[in-house]
Amino acid sequence: MGTNHTTNTLQSFLDVNRQIKSYEEALGVLYWDLRTGAPRKGMDTRSEVIGVLSGEMFKLSTSPQLGDLLSELEQPEVLSGLSEIHSKLVTETRKDYDRSVKIPPKLYQEYVVISSQSESKWEEAKAQNDYAGFQPYLEKVISYTNQFIDLWGAKATRYDTLLDQYEPGMTTAELDRVFGGLREQLVPLAAAIAASPHQPDTSFLRQSYDKGAQKQFSLFILKQLGFNFDAGRLDESVHPFATGLSPGDVRITTRYLEDDVTSALFGTIHECGHGMYEQNIMGELIGTTLCQGTSMGIHESQSRFWENVIGRSRPFWERYYGDLQKHFPGQLNVSVDEFYRGNNVVQPSLIRIEADELTYNLHIIIRYEMEKLIFNEGAKASDLPALWNDKYKEYLGITPSTDAEGVLQDVHWSGGAFGYFPSYSLGNMYAAQMADTMERELPNMWGSVADGQLLPLRDWLAERIYKYGKLRTPSELIQSVTGKPLDPQHLVTYLERKYKDIYKL
Amino acid sequence: MGTNHTTNTLQSFLDVNRQIKSYEEALGVLYWDLRTGAPRKGMDTRSEVIGVLSGEMFKLSTSPQLGDLLSELEQPEVLSGLSEIHSKLVTETRKDYDRSVKIPPKLYQEYVVISSQSESKWEEAKAQNDYAGFQPYLEKVISYTNQFIDLWGAKATRYDTLLDQYEPGMTTAELDRVFGGLREQLVPLAAAIAASPHQPDTSFLRQSYDKGAQKQFSLFILKQLGFNFDAGRLDESVHPFATGLSPGDVRITTRYLEDDVTSALFGTIHECGHGMYEQNIMGELIGTTLCQGTSMGIHESQSRFWENVIGRSRPFWERYYGDLQKHFPGQLNVSVDEFYRGNNVVQPSLIRIEADELTYNLHIIIRYEMEKLIFNEGAKASDLPALWNDKYKEYLGITPSTDAEGVLQDVHWSGGAFGYFPSYSLGNMYAAQMADTMERELPNMWGSVADGQLLPLRDWLAERIYKYGKLRTPSELIQSVTGKPLDPQHLVTYLERKYKDIYKL
Repeated sequence: MGTNHTTNTLQSFLDVNRQIKSYEEALGVLYWDLRTGAPRKGMDTRSEVIGVLSGEMFKLSTSPQLGDLLSELEQPEVLSGLSEIHSKLVTETRKDYDRSVKIPPKLYQEYVVISSQSESKWEEAKAQNDYAGFQPYLEKVISYTNQFIDLWGAKATRYDTLLDQYEPGMTTAELDRVFGGLREQLVPLAAAIAASPHQPDTSFLRQSYDKGAQKQFSLFILKQLGFNFDAGRLDESVHPFATGLSPGDVRITTRYLEDDVTSALFGTIHECGHGMYEQNIMGELIGTTLCQGTSMGIHESQSRFWENVIGRSRPFWERYYGDLQKHFPGQLNVSVDEFYRGNNVVQPSLIRIEADELTYNLHIIIRYEMEKLIFNEGAKASDLPALWNDKYKEYLGITPSTDAEGVLQDVHWSGGAFGYFPSYSLGNMYAAQMADTMERELPNMWGSVADGQLLPLRDWLAERIYKYGKLRTPSELIQSVTGKPLDPQHLVTYLERKYKDIYKL
Repeated sequence: MGTNHTTNTLQSFLDVNRQIKSYEEALGVLYWDLRTGAPRKGMDTRSEVIGVLSGEMFKLSTSPQLGDLLSELEQPEVLSGLSEIHSKLVTETRKDYDRSVKIPPKLYQEYVVISSQSESKWEEAKAQNDYAGFQPYLEKVISYTNQFIDLWGAKATRYDTLLDQYEPGMTTAELDRVFGGLREQLVPLAAAIAASPHQPDTSFLRQSYDKGAQKQFSLFILKQLGFNFDAGRLDESVHPFATGLSPGDVRITTRYLEDDVTSALFGTIHECGHGMYEQNIMGELIGTTLCQGTSMGIHESQSRFWENVIGRSRPFWERYYGDLQKHFPGQLNVSVDEFYRGNNVVQPSLIRIEADELTYNLHIIIRYEMEKLIFNEGAKASDLPALWNDKYKEYLGITPSTDAEGVLQDVHWSGGAFGYFPSYSLGNMYAAQMADTMERELPNMWGSVADGQLLPLRDWLAERIYKYGKLRTPSELIQSVTGKPLDPQHLVTYLERKYKDIYKL
């Protein structure tokens, strides 16, 4: 009888979870559609549809019925009898459930309005270089975020509570350790590179390159990498993205720039990394909320592994440069070495999203340190522009001439996404550490790349990371794959090896 | 207080209706996506998502809460105080509500399984010319449909109950009247055409016509017709269709055939007619279930008006043939008259979906007479093949050599869509009757077409039909637009005028 009752409880719980996942997929299709070509005039009605479905999903995710099911399944004698997947699903659902029900609906609705106004205001303020106009909105968003931290409960520090949303288990203490190591070594490396007399030539990148040929080459490379077109597609959008509706339906987008032969390509490879992660989650997780990447940082490690570690490597271009040349007859006359160097330029710059793979980390560390100051030290919105400029001067040696190209450049804070930025650099560090293990475990890894044998790399990652979805935490994964915790030295070593060669340091 | 209460009741009712409409739009996007390029491997998960959303929509549509709201709003003193739109919305929602709640959920679930099995079996039976294998499934579908008629309640005849699903208010008496008139005059006209020595040449249609150029020309024609690309898009799919998600987002599809220069074009114009109907529904109806075409017949009148009355007219090609020739340099050397005649061939044939605009009606009348026999006279599934073949002999002068090209050719009956077929010919009759009024009311209508001034035609229809959505019934529309009830003589006159010229009768 007891067992029978548990079976029914588990089934009801799985049904609710499956429903939530179904709403997620439906919403995923609606968003994908909006961003890939939905007619302009349907936007208002579509927003309402999204509102209705999101509301329904929120109701399911916070229902007292779900709370009761969780409490029953969390009884030690019940939990210990569940399979690994079901047990993890209970734990993860509890986490989401508590996070959602701890915020009073009225407070959350106020916040949705405020953060949406703040995002609009930010867009305007950035266009008009008007930080003063944006500041009161940012103050409100920070204030609501502080209220949420109070309701959720502060972890070791208040900022840790925010980090945990995007990188479960990540702490300020851990980030201080790894970012400290990075900063110390990357700042002088960037300076040495800037001083090198051997700057690569990039002029050949900026001709007029036919978009159709770019698309053909991108599709060819996606197939080489192992993106499965029976379980995915490539479209165009203003801002490239990847969305995993289910492992059988993963969609990536890109944006072709006529005056740049590799911009769209590297963007496509980046999204392909996200996409292959989602395509290779094990079938047992389909229809549950564990069927997704485990964290923003691990997801980003895969996009960056494929884009930077592989896509911007010399062996990769030794294999594919000839194919690229054939797609643009008469246009690419530089040697493969010049092509490789031209696609790996390091240069301190003001704008994060245009940064190279070395200085990118410094952009992130600056934002991380400022977020810590806001939530752990009480820094005010009015302090941020000066703080920003000082840190850019210190770490990158340059100063924004306006707030628009300084503290106003990113959308994240305006919408309340505090704690998100570190994921990007975590991704770089995870990727370098995994690549180090892969080099040792995969026989002749770089020889395979130079031969265009890329599927063994994908399969290695699928077997160790992708298939687990959300079944393992980021720190469990990095430990099980590389045999040790996150170590920033792998990224430093990778960058030094690469750029000392390119810049002949 | 009473007014306040009514306001709240109305608001709750509108909220439920808006939610239902939101689910409809979300499902519309999911189906569109499945049919225009969703990855194959995502189908199973997607089916589940569709199941969850459909189930939720069904729950909303049949909830006791909605029943209570309807009862309150139907009180005479309340109903009389509602606006025209709200009052109509109450009436229409009641109709849908009763139809849904009268079927016990268990019976309906059985039926969903049976009709889905029956459709699969039909596909197999058609491929193998095996009516005997399909017959038991068809018997079951007929039996369930008869149970539904009992539960819904028979109207003047049992078959009227089925007709009303697709063409509200339509009756067997009315169809006997109009189809009787049609049949009597079209059978001899088709025979005279077949006997004419002046058969058009069609060989020029069947060269290899570049798909890209076909697409360019289709897009050009859609713009000429007045399809709004800010509120719609054109894609490709195996079976062309139109779907109105909202007036701001209407999607049509087509299928390009390399060996036919006009097949995709006329299909596109057909779907454009459906699409322009949905794009021009008045803003006041958005977010309600009145925001859709009023019936299958009126919808079909618009696709057929644009495809046949306009798209296959001589003035249309006097204007656009030169443009078409330019899209296929050196390929179209026949005169505009030969081109026009080649695209208007009448020939008795066995297959409905390949029929011309004259004999098409005879295919429909045959199916109508058989559906009447099944539901009003108790004809059995085992009687149908012989009945079918006799009627084809009588009306079209030809006999199918197999059941596959006879009684098994259409999917409709296998899935239980009895009462649907008449819509197609109603569409032809409505279209001809409206065109007759338009010719008299729009100054120099055919001169405008010959000048490529097509927007006044669209606007005339939008003002009289499109904008009302489901606010007016089919018979109200035909009466208000043309000043009289449906009169089949307009279609006969139109066809006689057109084909006596083409076939020099």
